[in-house]
Amino acid sequence: MTRGGEASDGLFKNATIVGLGLIGGSIARDLAAIGVRVRGYDADREQLDAAVRDGIVSDPLDSDFRGAESDVIVLAVPVDQAPAMLRRLAGVARSARLVTDVGSTKASIVNEARDLGLEGCFVGAHPMAGDHRSGWAASRRNLFADALVYLCPASSARTPVVDVAMQFWRSLGASPCLMEAEAHDRHVAWTSHVPHLVSMALGLALAGAGIERDALGPGGRDVTRLAGSSPEMWTAIASDNRAAIDEALASAEHEVAGFRAALKSGDQTLLRERFAAAQAWFDGGSSKSAPSSTAPLPRPPRSPR
Amino acid sequence: MTRGGEASDGLFKNATIVGLGLIGGSIARDLAAIGVRVRGYDADREQLDAAVRDGIVSDPLDSDFRGAESDVIVLAVPVDQAPAMLRRLAGVARSARLVTDVGSTKASIVNEARDLGLEGCFVGAHPMAGDHRSGWAASRRNLFADALVYLCPASSARTPVVDVAMQFWRSLGASPCLMEAEAHDRHVAWTSHVPHLVSMALGLALAGAGIERDALGPGGRDVTRLAGSSPEMWTAIASDNRAAIDEALASAEHEVAGFRAALKSGDQTLLRERFAAAQAWFDGGSSKSAPSSTAPLPRPPRSPR
Repeated sequence: MTRGGEASDGLFKNATIVGLGLIGGSIARDLAAIGVRVRGYDADREQLDAAVRDGIVSDPLDSDFRGAESDVIVLAVPVDQAPAMLRRLAGVARSARLVTDVGSTKASIVNEARDLGLEGCFVGAHPMAGDHRSGWAASRRNLFADALVYLCPASSARTPVVDVAMQFWRSLGASPCLMEAEAHDRHVAWTSHVPHLVSMALGLALAGAGIERDALGPGGRDVTRLAGSSPEMWTAIASDNRAAIDEALASAEHEVAGFRAALKSGDQTLLRERFAAAQAWFDGGSSKSAPSSTAPLPRPPRSPR
Repeated sequence: MTRGGEASDGLFKNATIVGLGLIGGSIARDLAAIGVRVRGYDADREQLDAAVRDGIVSDPLDSDFRGAESDVIVLAVPVDQAPAMLRRLAGVARSARLVTDVGSTKASIVNEARDLGLEGCFVGAHPMAGDHRSGWAASRRNLFADALVYLCPASSARTPVVDVAMQFWRSLGASPCLMEAEAHDRHVAWTSHVPHLVSMALGLALAGAGIERDALGPGGRDVTRLAGSSPEMWTAIASDNRAAIDEALASAEHEVAGFRAALKSGDQTLLRERFAAAQAWFDGGSSKSAPSSTAPLPRPPRSPR
């Protein structure tokens, strides 16, 4: 038993992890700890060697993926590489009980799985875990303990693989939440992608003014923490989810402009109302329901309009 | 000796704290701990009573400020009330070794001190400490340990009171940095006020989309933490510093628009360059010098253009 995880009852004897960065590496560590034999691949041989040296990956794989057949296959590569990687793995994927991934956008990879006829074994996943660091060295045990993980099946029918996927992610300690891929992508544009872009935009504004991050107070440092995120990863995510992001980012831009207009007007009542509305949101209107992990394909936990 | 503080060598035998919220209350706690007798006033009698009950304030004061004479007088009221409060205290202020405040904007209060002829005893202060909570219940020991505190004298000449102010704030564990009031206000528009407004703007955008804060990942929660800030306090701050804030907020708005344009163009190279620039800023170009606490009236530590 891992902290927060539950035993997988020997459901998965072995697993193939493709991509041994922060997320893939952390999955590998948790699986190895509950006795799953881990096969691993990374395009960067040094990351793979480190994972073998640390005793986590038992069977290092070459780029031909010979010997990659496993009960579960996890794609943990950047979202712009995931569809091509899934095509390369399609042969071994068909014999797996579960093929899953970890990308921050889900429509592209789920569509690819459908095109490849993998509806019976593929369930896309997006664990809400990790930070701005990357690479095997950043991977760690229990990264997914109590983390929300969105699961996006390739089939719109409730197929048995959905339960397998839930079991797999629960064995890592995560809390699964089923969602359609397109609804997921709209939802995370709001909950994750736009907060990242706003944090980065503020970083760029400060950079332009010659203000270093050290000069900020604790609040300003929090707001700009996501400016340190990986440019490669976010180029891939933002490009893949640009339509949904644009809608949410336009709203954030509108609210910034709203503060400028309120300031310019000198209308203190309007300004106070805006601050009070932000605080009311922060304090939480608890009228909406909590995320459900049981209903099949529910709407997002707190759905965007 | 407090953690991070240094003994004031009996320089201040007594102090009058006007406003016993998070900041004023924390100053009172630290002073009481190093043996300074604390006189206290709060417009909210319940806050004052709590401070007396907790054994921090020895002498509660009425609104006529009889018995308010002290070695040091600290104004810890909202920035929009501070100038009027300084006028009310002008009589007792003249006999103090130091009159200081804690407001997030400095030009208004420093100008008021000049108008009242208090150049010889007034040094405005802005400690970079605190959080979104407020009131006596939120006050605590060592809030200022290792915190940057901007000091803005009322006199442009280097008067002895500046050294007294440095000694006072160092006795609370803070690191003083001298700056002209107008330069301070432009600087904090960038380092504090605009990060707050951007965080609030994102909160409003999410509220508009029906997304609760609980649905965010740890990153999104960090970016929106300042949305919980006090509406009253921020209405006062934003109104007082609106010109400087508008310039900085316009830049943040411009960068958000820049991300939208880059996304719309589909130009991944441009997008990657913007993410990389944000990350480079996060990682810190260490070409600029650290803040100096010794030079008289230096420019801001990292000056806005």
